[in-house]
Amino acid sequence: MIAEILSTGDEVLLGDIVDTNSGFLCEKLLDLGITVSQITAVGDEVGQISRTLDQIAQRADICLVTGGLGPTSDDLTALGCARAAGEELILNSNAVETMALFFQKRGFEIDQANKKQAMLPASAGVLPNTNGTAPGFFMRMGQCCFYFMPGVPSEMMSMYTDAVKPRLVDNFGLTSQILIERLTIFGLGESRVGSLLKGFENKFAGMHLGFRAKFPFVEVKIVYPVKIKSDRAGNTDRKQLDAASKWVLGCLENKVISKTGQSLEQEVGSLLKEKQFTLAIAESCTGGLISNLVTDVAGSSDYFLFSAVTYSNEAKMNILKVSQKTLETYGAVHEQTALEMARGVRYAANSDWGISTTGIAGPGGGTQDKPVGTVCIGIAGPGIETSKRYTFNFGSRSANKEMFAATALELLRRNLIGK
Amino acid sequence: MIAEILSTGDEVLLGDIVDTNSGFLCEKLLDLGITVSQITAVGDEVGQISRTLDQIAQRADICLVTGGLGPTSDDLTALGCARAAGEELILNSNAVETMALFFQKRGFEIDQANKKQAMLPASAGVLPNTNGTAPGFFMRMGQCCFYFMPGVPSEMMSMYTDAVKPRLVDNFGLTSQILIERLTIFGLGESRVGSLLKGFENKFAGMHLGFRAKFPFVEVKIVYPVKIKSDRAGNTDRKQLDAASKWVLGCLENKVISKTGQSLEQEVGSLLKEKQFTLAIAESCTGGLISNLVTDVAGSSDYFLFSAVTYSNEAKMNILKVSQKTLETYGAVHEQTALEMARGVRYAANSDWGISTTGIAGPGGGTQDKPVGTVCIGIAGPGIETSKRYTFNFGSRSANKEMFAATALELLRRNLIGK
Repeated sequence: MIAEILSTGDEVLLGDIVDTNSGFLCEKLLDLGITVSQITAVGDEVGQISRTLDQIAQRADICLVTGGLGPTSDDLTALGCARAAGEELILNSNAVETMALFFQKRGFEIDQANKKQAMLPASAGVLPNTNGTAPGFFMRMGQCCFYFMPGVPSEMMSMYTDAVKPRLVDNFGLTSQILIERLTIFGLGESRVGSLLKGFENKFAGMHLGFRAKFPFVEVKIVYPVKIKSDRAGNTDRKQLDAASKWVLGCLENKVISKTGQSLEQEVGSLLKEKQFTLAIAESCTGGLISNLVTDVAGSSDYFLFSAVTYSNEAKMNILKVSQKTLETYGAVHEQTALEMARGVRYAANSDWGISTTGIAGPGGGTQDKPVGTVCIGIAGPGIETSKRYTFNFGSRSANKEMFAATALELLRRNLIGK
Repeated sequence: MIAEILSTGDEVLLGDIVDTNSGFLCEKLLDLGITVSQITAVGDEVGQISRTLDQIAQRADICLVTGGLGPTSDDLTALGCARAAGEELILNSNAVETMALFFQKRGFEIDQANKKQAMLPASAGVLPNTNGTAPGFFMRMGQCCFYFMPGVPSEMMSMYTDAVKPRLVDNFGLTSQILIERLTIFGLGESRVGSLLKGFENKFAGMHLGFRAKFPFVEVKIVYPVKIKSDRAGNTDRKQLDAASKWVLGCLENKVISKTGQSLEQEVGSLLKEKQFTLAIAESCTGGLISNLVTDVAGSSDYFLFSAVTYSNEAKMNILKVSQKTLETYGAVHEQTALEMARGVRYAANSDWGISTTGIAGPGGGTQDKPVGTVCIGIAGPGIETSKRYTFNFGSRSANKEMFAATALELLRRNLIGK
């Protein structure tokens, strides 16, 4: 089965936007066991659109097209398709109906400009749009089934899921699907993860592993293509995947921060909530990044109380009560300073846990003893006060900040689960 | 002139990475006055690579190719190219030389696996790689000049700039170039910016405007295609562009936050540094985002002293000395609270300026009086103490946080420039 993707629109060719739609569709088709063989992007030029559709019709079985379905004069996909198929554009009454419904729900009447969007090739069937006005459509040209969707990502995504995917499964009698487990790893590089999981494919026939670096994390995918079966028979496949997932977890031990696709800050948030703990943060080199991550989680006000970003020594002393002697003896970047910062912020906020970072994110400020990438992380909580020094260097200030922040949150997570 | 881009590699077709290389190259070609007519992405399959190259050779004048030049078995671009051209792959001595140089500088010797990367089609010329081992190459097939670059973005970018661009200018006798001015706008929507600049194209013949939303900002590009002239004659073009830029600035008044492509936090940082002011920040609803933005700027420790992220009322009272009466009378989200937070953090850090945010980022926590998207921003500085309430709602917690943070930084910027 040959599958292709065509994206239309000047924005991509002018470098104004990056084509993320195609990546989404590639991943979704892969979930159905279909690998895309080519992605093409062309501009808002009707001749080129129709020529390209014609070429694809000669070589592919499935083509997903995005973009160019709007109401303005540069929306030319339907016209390009009609030309390629040698058909007329006609007012599609089903399309008018789904649009009228969309407008009605919002208290508007459909107008003439919108009706242009319902002008579709004569043989096209309608794909309803639940998130916008432009209806999608599907039709066959040559040996290829084409599915036309809007370019607005939110509209395209829901149309794919609600209208295109079920048609693909039906039309192509897709009898297999891909079961996927995603594990998020922190603290191991991609190649190290790969070598720790060596032997997987011999152990678990029919499954394979995929790796993807999402700095500072690595995502491991366990991919298992299976036949679509009844629920009861499907349970066996599920169990085999669970066994594989358990084996992977065993190999990677406590480096797996999430088995559900949750972010580290979401995992930490869930643990704090579950245990009814509160958190305060003292940041120096991370400059507010940890607080920003923690408070990106909706509902974080349940456990997050206070954070102090203390760049100056004065702020470390006044707000966090780091002792002047510590700063004079050891300097701002030191385990002892980190410890006093964590203790101090915990005390200042009267929280259950306090965590701290002090280090050198770069590009300047490094010394021989404490090069750029050095960070000391402190943790203070019920029955524990500790701190640790790490040296990373990921080349950029923002990458170092991200690594420092993830390391601090991971240290807290380990303490919360007692590992 | 017909220009195309071809990206090779399974990663894009598997949805593992988004193809950002093509966007970069589209923008760069546009700077030379060349609009890309098609982008194609194919996988690591030698037959498909060679067929696609062959098709492009029949219709395009220029083709930039990225990916597939590495040392492993799935790097097949050179082989695909040789097949399309009907040539042999031979060990290119220039390529070996540039690779040997790269290794030598790093204290390594070139090995056999690397030599595979120097096997190029017989008629190819070498494009040196200053950032990695894989040499690029160029050659003509049909009427089309092909330029093959690595897929690693940093290697591709420097190779384009150093080796491909000068060849394009020479080979195609490019006598025109595009002068571009970029202005960053905050506080106006894209369509509002467009209507304020109506009449531009009549006023400035030969120039046109481009708009691009980069939430929460809008970028306006003034695009001016001109003939490449001697420096002295070129000055006239430059002056005309400056006049256009001045006119745009006049229309948009103080909504232009940068004329140089600097971010808002960089602009604020430059102003603080220039005036030798220090800054402290009190954040509630922005949760550390402002501090994180401010400290992303290298050298921010020169002016940034301290930030308090105070989610709890206790922290607002204890650290920022917001009065209990204010919190009881007006609540946490109020102009008076914002004012006392800004004043309090300025006092706590002994800084020249203090800014504050308190509001409701959502999704929960909104009321009829103070819906999600409400934010109060306080500013305290030499001779000024003020606060202001805004109501935004951009649908997501993180979008609201970004809007709040930018509004606070913009209010500070306006105060720093006295407007």
